[in-house]
Amino acid sequence: MPGIEKLPIEETLEDSPQTRSLLGVFEEDTAAISNYCTQLYQAMQRIYDAQNELSAATHLTSRLLKEYDKQRFPLGGDDEVMSSTLQQFAKVIDELSSCHAVLSTQLADAMMFPITQFKERDLKEILTLKEVFQIASDDHDTAINRYSRLSKRRDNDKVNTSAVEDVYTSRKKQHQTMMHYFCSLNTLQYKKKTALLEPLLGYMQAQISFFKLGSENLTQQWEEFLGTIGTSVQNQRAGRTAKR
Amino acid sequence: MPGIEKLPIEETLEDSPQTRSLLGVFEEDTAAISNYCTQLYQAMQRIYDAQNELSAATHLTSRLLKEYDKQRFPLGGDDEVMSSTLQQFAKVIDELSSCHAVLSTQLADAMMFPITQFKERDLKEILTLKEVFQIASDDHDTAINRYSRLSKRRDNDKVNTSAVEDVYTSRKKQHQTMMHYFCSLNTLQYKKKTALLEPLLGYMQAQISFFKLGSENLTQQWEEFLGTIGTSVQNQRAGRTAKR
Repeated sequence: MPGIEKLPIEETLEDSPQTRSLLGVFEEDTAAISNYCTQLYQAMQRIYDAQNELSAATHLTSRLLKEYDKQRFPLGGDDEVMSSTLQQFAKVIDELSSCHAVLSTQLADAMMFPITQFKERDLKEILTLKEVFQIASDDHDTAINRYSRLSKRRDNDKVNTSAVEDVYTSRKKQHQTMMHYFCSLNTLQYKKKTALLEPLLGYMQAQISFFKLGSENLTQQWEEFLGTIGTSVQNQRAGRTAKR
Repeated sequence: MPGIEKLPIEETLEDSPQTRSLLGVFEEDTAAISNYCTQLYQAMQRIYDAQNELSAATHLTSRLLKEYDKQRFPLGGDDEVMSSTLQQFAKVIDELSSCHAVLSTQLADAMMFPITQFKERDLKEILTLKEVFQIASDDHDTAINRYSRLSKRRDNDKVNTSAVEDVYTSRKKQHQTMMHYFCSLNTLQYKKKTALLEPLLGYMQAQISFFKLGSENLTQQWEEFLGTIGTSVQNQRAGRTAKR
């Protein structure tokens, strides 16, 4: 399919069975997009929630390590090597939790925001317009019915005029809401690809930044830090052995 | 504090107030370690659960993208560019979810396993031994009381002998359980540093592997892939413009 299909807005005035049939196809397509996007939205919401929880849990772990010095351990509470090692762990894990927090923010902005907008604004707008159009169609049907019943006994000019006016205004209303509804359905066909691709690109960019941030800044620091721990553990062992 | 403090096992037979007072200090230290480790265990469990959830949610997102082709979209369902783009997203996100799964496994083995063992085996053993020692002490006190009451009226040799035997066996039992309890409390002093450092080192190693795996394998593929998307989106745009 090379181009994007359109509902013919110029056909809304005639409102033929062919137009209604085409509308049915667009409505079915919209329902399928809406269903698929909602599933994707839920999966992305799970990723986002899990990422936030991971960020919070990592931060909590770092905080607990920082609080090691404040614990009251009657024995060996003043072990400086242990204490400074845990402080270094706390620092590095805190940096990692900052990376997670940056990732969370990026996911919020570049993934959750566009897909939520599409779901809550574009898809909801179509549902609202569908209802409005349904009400306008029903009102029009009622006016037509009233008019056709009245037209058999042409006795009351005032009632007749009122019925004709009703048909006119309800027809106009239906035409307007139908054009509006068609417009929204057509716009959705243009938006649907972006709606899927934008949050995915946002997700990928956020992950790439996260891996870059993590591997460039943190791992180098970590290797140095793990080297330091290794040295201090060895020193402690040597000290203990010498004292025996 | 250079060395590690010890409860003197050779003093368990005499069981002096000084020894009991020192035992109290060790019990207080053990309670503090237990409390701190439990908090750290809970924070690590949160990290682990969040990591598992993130892994599962990422996998679900990849699966949803793979299922795009199976969706029934009445309009534009046979758009090959969109379809292949989403399949590539699915593939890359699936690889990312594999990295997350590897991280989950490493966290399970190198972080959760050692801290769970320490909490469920070492710390629980001490609680059990404390109870056993308390029961043996109570039994011993009962036997001593019975003996001291009997000794005032030396009329029944059989009862006397039984009371002496009771004091002997309960004293022996109490001595044995006290030695066992002291041993465990001393062992904990040796284990407590490893118990804190081992899961933290496991966590760090797992994170380093994750960042290496992610940045070395994935990001290069991703950059190529994002380049490909850029090109195909441009081609699609150019095609659409040419057709107009």
